[in-house]
Amino acid sequence: MSDKRPIGIFDSGVGGLTVVKEMRRVLPGEDIIYFGDTAHVPYGAKSKETIKRFSIENVNFLLKYNVKLIVVACNTSSSVALPLLRRSFKVPIVGVVMPGARRAAALSGYGKIGLIGTRTTISSGAYEKALKKVAPKLKVISKPCPLFVSLAEEGWTSHRLTRLIAKEYLAPLKKAKVKSLILGCTHYPLLYQVIKREMGKGVRLVDSARSVADETAIILRERSLLTSARKGGMQKFFVSDEPMRFAGLGKRFLGKKLKYVRKA
Amino acid sequence: MSDKRPIGIFDSGVGGLTVVKEMRRVLPGEDIIYFGDTAHVPYGAKSKETIKRFSIENVNFLLKYNVKLIVVACNTSSSVALPLLRRSFKVPIVGVVMPGARRAAALSGYGKIGLIGTRTTISSGAYEKALKKVAPKLKVISKPCPLFVSLAEEGWTSHRLTRLIAKEYLAPLKKAKVKSLILGCTHYPLLYQVIKREMGKGVRLVDSARSVADETAIILRERSLLTSARKGGMQKFFVSDEPMRFAGLGKRFLGKKLKYVRKA
Repeated sequence: MSDKRPIGIFDSGVGGLTVVKEMRRVLPGEDIIYFGDTAHVPYGAKSKETIKRFSIENVNFLLKYNVKLIVVACNTSSSVALPLLRRSFKVPIVGVVMPGARRAAALSGYGKIGLIGTRTTISSGAYEKALKKVAPKLKVISKPCPLFVSLAEEGWTSHRLTRLIAKEYLAPLKKAKVKSLILGCTHYPLLYQVIKREMGKGVRLVDSARSVADETAIILRERSLLTSARKGGMQKFFVSDEPMRFAGLGKRFLGKKLKYVRKA
Repeated sequence: MSDKRPIGIFDSGVGGLTVVKEMRRVLPGEDIIYFGDTAHVPYGAKSKETIKRFSIENVNFLLKYNVKLIVVACNTSSSVALPLLRRSFKVPIVGVVMPGARRAAALSGYGKIGLIGTRTTISSGAYEKALKKVAPKLKVISKPCPLFVSLAEEGWTSHRLTRLIAKEYLAPLKKAKVKSLILGCTHYPLLYQVIKREMGKGVRLVDSARSVADETAIILRERSLLTSARKGGMQKFFVSDEPMRFAGLGKRFLGKKLKYVRKA
């Protein structure tokens, strides 16, 4: 059996392209329909109710393209809307929180786990809840890093001031001697080098983009939803604001030019 | 004649409260209905079309409260949507760009004018156009400072790193020896001290919140729309996202507690 239907991915904006990048690596034959809710970005400081409402709209948009599975690439949306989305729709829906939590647990041994993300992601407690399931005995130290999103979008990914801001944000995690650090926001992989350097070699960074791509592959295989194509998957990108800025920023996140970008 | 109808003010979020603060100082008897579009904030990196759409929705909301005049407190919205709003509605509509430009021209003598704001405000060229009308011979040097919004919202208003970021952003304006500097974003007055310190004593900062309050008073007087009340004006605040965070942040912008905040 070969299921040629595309995978749907949504994010609050451009950050979810880090998930697309990993998805292409893990599942190069799959077509992808991406929706970036750029008219409403960012989600990270908005309320749970508002994020739930936007998330439902995003799923409804993707369903129009006959997607076989939906990935919620946005950590904030995964943290607050995933249970609601799964209750509301039949299509399999994968979030980034549980795959990230599992990976962090695997990498941490008996050490503490660090978590950084937006305010809403951190205050939702979703990662703590997921970690309690997979690693009930491990201690979690979390810290919201709201400026990281703006710094990544501003392109200050290796800027001296970004390093100083990282130093300030990450100090409590470093002091707590965490063994792994979950990058709980799709923008943060862009600051990977800065965060890595600040935390030091002993700390493993968990990029949820990688974990969610692996998780998606497992689910598609289990449910016989994989395409038989081994390569050549196409990507189409839709956004709720105008496509130009998304295409410009997107190149930085995807690591290559975005060919097809349209206003939804 | 005394017109007791309220003044309507909208902004993309919480920044417009700097305008409310000045409005209360200049027109303490006037009632104010404020709408903060917190579900869509920030406007600063979004497209013109999307900002126009949001701005029309915001005016429609305020009109339900029988407002006698509307102030577009958001610089981004004033820069890209004001002509459309004036064509579309009968109610008098005041933006922040022209009052700010006039004040800057008055303060600059024969010197250069500096302008900082969001990406969309700067790239719209609205301030340059307004300045061309009021001071056709003065040279304008502009610089987008997108991180300032996040820094203000993060509460890092006098943080060491904010000073360093300001130093970097403002360097070209300082080098150009501008005589005045327009704070072309409602969030920037929160960073007043940092910006002032960086630019030096010789540079006059133009806070559009002050100018727009004066402009509003002039228009209301001209059209006989002033209330006869000398004090005791009430303020009601509505937001499109949940009210809690707005009320919390709002205190910092308004300089006092917000009594009435509701979801629109």
